[in-house]
Amino acid sequence: MLENITDKKLKNLNLPQLNTLCEEARQKIISTVFRNGGHLSSNLGTVELSVALHYVFDFPNDKLIFDVGHQCYTHKLLSGRYEKFDSIRKKNGISGFPKREESEYDCYNTGHAGTSVSAALGIAKARDVKGDDFNVIAVIGDGSFNNGLVYEAFNSLRLLNTRILVILNDNGMSIAPTVGSMHEYLEILSENTEHKEKRDKHAKIFERFGFKYDGVYDGNDLPKMIEKLSEIKQRLKTESVILHIISKKGKGYEFCEENPEATHGISVSNANDVSIEYSQILGETLSRLAEKDKRIVAVTAAMTSSLGLSSFFEKFPDRAVDVGICEEHATILCASMATEGLKPYYAVYSTFLQRSYDEIMIDICSQNLPVTLCIDRAGISGSDGETHQGVFDLSFLSSIPNLTIAVPKDAKEFEAMLNFSTSFNVPLAIRYPRECRKIFGRQSEIIAGKWEKLSDGDGKFVIIACGERAITISLAATETLNKSYGINVAVINARFVKPLDIEILKSLNERVIITVEDNMLIGGLGAMIDAYYSADSKIIKNFAYGDKFITHGGINELMNENGVSCEKIIDYILNENR
Amino acid sequence: MLENITDKKLKNLNLPQLNTLCEEARQKIISTVFRNGGHLSSNLGTVELSVALHYVFDFPNDKLIFDVGHQCYTHKLLSGRYEKFDSIRKKNGISGFPKREESEYDCYNTGHAGTSVSAALGIAKARDVKGDDFNVIAVIGDGSFNNGLVYEAFNSLRLLNTRILVILNDNGMSIAPTVGSMHEYLEILSENTEHKEKRDKHAKIFERFGFKYDGVYDGNDLPKMIEKLSEIKQRLKTESVILHIISKKGKGYEFCEENPEATHGISVSNANDVSIEYSQILGETLSRLAEKDKRIVAVTAAMTSSLGLSSFFEKFPDRAVDVGICEEHATILCASMATEGLKPYYAVYSTFLQRSYDEIMIDICSQNLPVTLCIDRAGISGSDGETHQGVFDLSFLSSIPNLTIAVPKDAKEFEAMLNFSTSFNVPLAIRYPRECRKIFGRQSEIIAGKWEKLSDGDGKFVIIACGERAITISLAATETLNKSYGINVAVINARFVKPLDIEILKSLNERVIITVEDNMLIGGLGAMIDAYYSADSKIIKNFAYGDKFITHGGINELMNENGVSCEKIIDYILNENR
Repeated sequence: MLENITDKKLKNLNLPQLNTLCEEARQKIISTVFRNGGHLSSNLGTVELSVALHYVFDFPNDKLIFDVGHQCYTHKLLSGRYEKFDSIRKKNGISGFPKREESEYDCYNTGHAGTSVSAALGIAKARDVKGDDFNVIAVIGDGSFNNGLVYEAFNSLRLLNTRILVILNDNGMSIAPTVGSMHEYLEILSENTEHKEKRDKHAKIFERFGFKYDGVYDGNDLPKMIEKLSEIKQRLKTESVILHIISKKGKGYEFCEENPEATHGISVSNANDVSIEYSQILGETLSRLAEKDKRIVAVTAAMTSSLGLSSFFEKFPDRAVDVGICEEHATILCASMATEGLKPYYAVYSTFLQRSYDEIMIDICSQNLPVTLCIDRAGISGSDGETHQGVFDLSFLSSIPNLTIAVPKDAKEFEAMLNFSTSFNVPLAIRYPRECRKIFGRQSEIIAGKWEKLSDGDGKFVIIACGERAITISLAATETLNKSYGINVAVINARFVKPLDIEILKSLNERVIITVEDNMLIGGLGAMIDAYYSADSKIIKNFAYGDKFITHGGINELMNENGVSCEKIIDYILNENR
Repeated sequence: MLENITDKKLKNLNLPQLNTLCEEARQKIISTVFRNGGHLSSNLGTVELSVALHYVFDFPNDKLIFDVGHQCYTHKLLSGRYEKFDSIRKKNGISGFPKREESEYDCYNTGHAGTSVSAALGIAKARDVKGDDFNVIAVIGDGSFNNGLVYEAFNSLRLLNTRILVILNDNGMSIAPTVGSMHEYLEILSENTEHKEKRDKHAKIFERFGFKYDGVYDGNDLPKMIEKLSEIKQRLKTESVILHIISKKGKGYEFCEENPEATHGISVSNANDVSIEYSQILGETLSRLAEKDKRIVAVTAAMTSSLGLSSFFEKFPDRAVDVGICEEHATILCASMATEGLKPYYAVYSTFLQRSYDEIMIDICSQNLPVTLCIDRAGISGSDGETHQGVFDLSFLSSIPNLTIAVPKDAKEFEAMLNFSTSFNVPLAIRYPRECRKIFGRQSEIIAGKWEKLSDGDGKFVIIACGERAITISLAATETLNKSYGINVAVINARFVKPLDIEILKSLNERVIITVEDNMLIGGLGAMIDAYYSADSKIIKNFAYGDKFITHGGINELMNENGVSCEKIIDYILNENR
């Protein structure tokens, strides 16, 4: 039934048929995610909700926004993308997130948390300005509900004088279990399912902001969802509504239901290819250091386990805080704890650190406080696509004064940098990808701002590279050039992108300097070296990403396609050597 | 009395003496602000609160954080800075904001809204980790209370398991009158001053987050403030408290009380020096365009008047939204309205746009939506200091794909760019300083990515500059070089910093290229040109700000000191010409 479903067909199905549709969607999601990787538990939890939404509302005329987007697979299957579903998260396939470019049923792209209510309000306001008539629905999880953006959006509902439906899909989890007082409050509401009066009294907070609250209902109960959505559809003509539902993350697949955090995202990368993850080094090293150094505290924003810090949190519960999806608050907590002499480590994915740009600038760096940013998933992150690539961090961090930026060449150097960080008393950022594939033979002492020479050359070409991926392809290129062409190219590990190692830069006699990095060109290592040599006649060639968003695909294929590859380096040097 | 006040002396004063102290502080603030410029109404409203805080608490052992910092003057006067107070906001004088570097009584630097509760929580948490014992107090206005950061901080109070005092200083204003549902809610609380029971019922929202609510009291009533703070000081041993006070912005100075928005900040720049403000052009042009173009909507975050948009808001109330101090939400509102075919203009100060970095990237640019960012107070902004300099925008915007960045050379070109923007259907940023001092003779058609040649040279030197200030000093330099030394230097108006005008860059025959901009070097115009010519033997010299925070002072003196000046350009060219 699912293969050929259309809006019209779906609306003519009876309940048993709709249940079958749900079952088919669930099976399709499970089989596809185990093949392609992707977000599993969150998508399994929203099958019934998605079917009910498509049954009751008229998409794409009505507008549906999924917060973050970890729950949009059933919607994709129901909106003409069944056939392409096998290609999800693959290069040139459909995206794992909502994408306007992909379907008119996706009205707003998401990827980072907390944006859906703002976006729904903007779309509803535009509808009013234009005199149009349609419904606008935001589906948001309780994890995203912690984010300050949701409060800002709620605060402006009355001001905007418009109407939207917010479906609060409460499964008690973000990726990790949801934390914070808002979550406790939602639990109180959920516990009072049998006492409508008591619950409604509790629900006053939402009414303050101009929403009518309606809850709590079982989000995996299809007939109930259809009934409630049909009723609310009428109410939306005159008022804004929050529909609070409880859904089961991983619903319908026992292993997921029992392990919702571990099955939130399924990775299908070749395990043999990875010797270790950087997150493991972070967790182990920081735990070891914290035993002796009582100043060390760790802060995360809802990703403790993925960042490798679960054991740190268990060992040092008083010195570890997961604040939920609140990247800005997490950054200020670190800055302020540092004013009192503590040594905070804020671990975060590169792409989510973007939310903290202003706080890194003002709170950490303008006060010159010794906070260490541990930036995971830096560089191309792969299948999640443009909203998750960590290719901007060097660019947005490099122009912030007082910040030192370190990029380890492998997990061992990362450990050394963490050791180094404990006595480094100003702001420090360390950026690294997820996986460490290689430990290099050479390991030398970490000194702030000092680079490491990895190999000597013939004096004509030198490669300056930062980070494991860039150094790996650089060394592979120089090996080929040596073996096949007798050309010897020097390689330098620019393990501090900021400050640049001026002493080394001054001493370089090579006429051609090649920079390699897993980051955008503008604002990155290469651009900083271009600026350093701006008055010089040296030839500088930058291998870095060009000025466009990088969509989803495999890490290696995306690096190749975007011009950062061993082959391109070899070609360039052979060409210049003629 | 104020001249020689110390903590010890202050605590021994009786009430009449304390009242005299308040009066002296008020007079000192008024006379100083009218001489030096600064924040007036907000500081006049918090005189009694500040005296009461110093009377009751023991600073610097106890910690006091002022949100934004527009209300810290009395605190400065009471904490050993009376003598330096005449130098406030002047180069090498004390700052108009809290500054750790200045006094141990300032425990946390602020400048951007909504950070104080997070910072108080971090400091309190650090206290608990270290086993220390002191009180932590955040003073926050109702304007900042709209910001999502406050919600994120509140949400984590229980999680952090610590105790702080939040003084909600409610004057009904941010810079403009406060908007939004939270503000309406605070008004409800204020209206119930006589009915404690009713008010306490209303105040449940704060209790949900773990705070005890205590209010509403007159913040300008000194004995009441002393009484309440003394009582709360005891309670802080076991619980966190919100003290809700109503204060009068501009208190004690009739003109300020009646004009709190106009007297929020007092500017003492020489009016003769300024022909017009860019904000006026924004307001007039956008209003004119919006008459015909029904797609145009305007969004601001609590600065409508300063951004020049008051008349637009009056003329088009249904197409204008001030969302309060919610820069992230404002950005997403624009992006989402654009998905429905509207043409949103988001007007904002450069420094506050930093809060929207992630949303500019993900919501506007990765979706390639036609939102126009009107970035006011770009470049060095002067007396407010390092938290308010608009010198980072080119750096953080330049690496964002799909974004076109325009920099008008004067108000007339700004108007032309706004006209141009209506038919430009992708993301656009226009950055400009506050004041326009000159309209240049030459005005040519705006074409995306195309620069304008302002003068020809001898073929040896060419200056590429962007923005009024950079072009003004460049033309002044070339005039001197021509008149006094017979050297003719070409000048190009790089009115699009992104994309670069490759056609012009390719065609330049000059051996020396000089770039001039009112922005950081890293990530700015100069660095992008350095990268463009990285493989070329041209000599590029960049005039831009180096890698450090720029403190407060006059605009011209700060530009000179930081190496972007007419004299430096002349010196360089004379030196290279030898």
